[in-house]
Amino acid sequence: MSRSSSRPLPPASAPRRAARGAVYLVGAGPGDPDLLTVRALKLMRRADVALYDNLVSPGVLALLPERTERVYVGKQRANHTMRQEAINALLVEHALAGKRVLRLKGGDPFVFGRGGEEIDTLSAHGIPFEVVPGITAALGAAAYAGIPLTHRDHAQSCVFVTGHLKDGSVDLDWPALARPRQTIVVYMGLLSLPMICRKLVEHGLPRDTGAAVVQHGTTPTQRVVTGTLATLPARVAKAKLHAPTLIIVGNVVRLREKLNWFAPGVPSRRTSRKR
Amino acid sequence: MSRSSSRPLPPASAPRRAARGAVYLVGAGPGDPDLLTVRALKLMRRADVALYDNLVSPGVLALLPERTERVYVGKQRANHTMRQEAINALLVEHALAGKRVLRLKGGDPFVFGRGGEEIDTLSAHGIPFEVVPGITAALGAAAYAGIPLTHRDHAQSCVFVTGHLKDGSVDLDWPALARPRQTIVVYMGLLSLPMICRKLVEHGLPRDTGAAVVQHGTTPTQRVVTGTLATLPARVAKAKLHAPTLIIVGNVVRLREKLNWFAPGVPSRRTSRKR
Repeated sequence: MSRSSSRPLPPASAPRRAARGAVYLVGAGPGDPDLLTVRALKLMRRADVALYDNLVSPGVLALLPERTERVYVGKQRANHTMRQEAINALLVEHALAGKRVLRLKGGDPFVFGRGGEEIDTLSAHGIPFEVVPGITAALGAAAYAGIPLTHRDHAQSCVFVTGHLKDGSVDLDWPALARPRQTIVVYMGLLSLPMICRKLVEHGLPRDTGAAVVQHGTTPTQRVVTGTLATLPARVAKAKLHAPTLIIVGNVVRLREKLNWFAPGVPSRRTSRKR
Repeated sequence: MSRSSSRPLPPASAPRRAARGAVYLVGAGPGDPDLLTVRALKLMRRADVALYDNLVSPGVLALLPERTERVYVGKQRANHTMRQEAINALLVEHALAGKRVLRLKGGDPFVFGRGGEEIDTLSAHGIPFEVVPGITAALGAAAYAGIPLTHRDHAQSCVFVTGHLKDGSVDLDWPALARPRQTIVVYMGLLSLPMICRKLVEHGLPRDTGAAVVQHGTTPTQRVVTGTLATLPARVAKAKLHAPTLIIVGNVVRLREKLNWFAPGVPSRRTSRKR
């Protein structure tokens, strides 16, 4: 079973492939289990082992069959690099043991999910894999908060970035972000919210540009705090929101006043469940 | 049944709501019916009438029950505005007739889907609605083409724009797009591809920046042409691609060489179907 790390994928018709394991890199969506794709659900039902991390919701995990081995590989911020390598190695190990390996990632595996790095390792080991896109947090939170990411009158472009703090600062391309008629979505930016709002104003966005933070988008604990670049940080501090959150900046946020439909916590929270 | 257009939504508990219709603005995903969400599929199965347009794939439409009335509302470029108003009016009309109305849109309804405008009209008429996010074309095409939209080594941000031609030109914020370590996804840009590549180089992106066009992403007719900002337009012209397509610009495109897994046209095209 020894494999050179530079070995290419065998051709799709190679019969030996059927005898080996495979890895399914699957987006688990933003939280609501109903936002899994049909493909994700099918693969969950057939998995021998599932590796998942922090951002996969309990409701989604509950859909794994009892027989599926669950492996939590949640990453700590501090030892990120080490853990990513350990995850990559674990995927290879299970696949080489002939298992159907489900790598379940919150949101979409190719949007801030480091999915590329994981399948790169698989590719190097000649392990078959498939990538299943998921509803990334931006799409889920926007839909359930009633905030269109693009809109003919307000936003012709939409940009996704992360707000991770590095050495107490956020390393973003502010001149590219602070543009008119653009919606900015910041993943993982709760701690850096005051800095993000300040920098966007410094780089030219009006102080009264709409902005929102969505906590636990699409789930029963979803909360949305809205304001402007000037007012949002104080409002969010007062509301005591908890990660994971998503920041949406742009005048599309104002549309929520009319387009908000999702009422988490209300027993029959969806219009459709009334009939 | 007269309704003032400024009337707010009734509270969720209002009993009269149950007697009325409702509209479900649902993302149909990028093409592969397996990329519908579970929620989308549930709503499709219960719809009285479905309004759909060009970008909803035949495979997805085939999942509508026979009893569901199908209404094609595909928009022509020329009379876009008139048609959008007609669609809005049709949604209201069916909902006021007490129907469960499914508004099925390719991809995600809030990413270049004009979903915000449609539910704005519903909100103004006091009609209950729900928004179901979908796998937007960028996520679908990226996953099935083996091109991560973000990557620690290559792209810290990802921006979505449209490449519609207006008066023979593309009205985009070139300085904001032509940035290092950013992935650009252009929806509906096939005709403007040469201009887009030229403008990005003029605004500072290296000529050898990776770039790809994905035709019919996630479907059996998916085709991917890769190159650089310098070489892609000629390659795409030669390949005679057909809309809908998606342009991906950024050095993440080079990862496809190792991460490509989807082989459309091969009978058992997915690794998982081999077992």
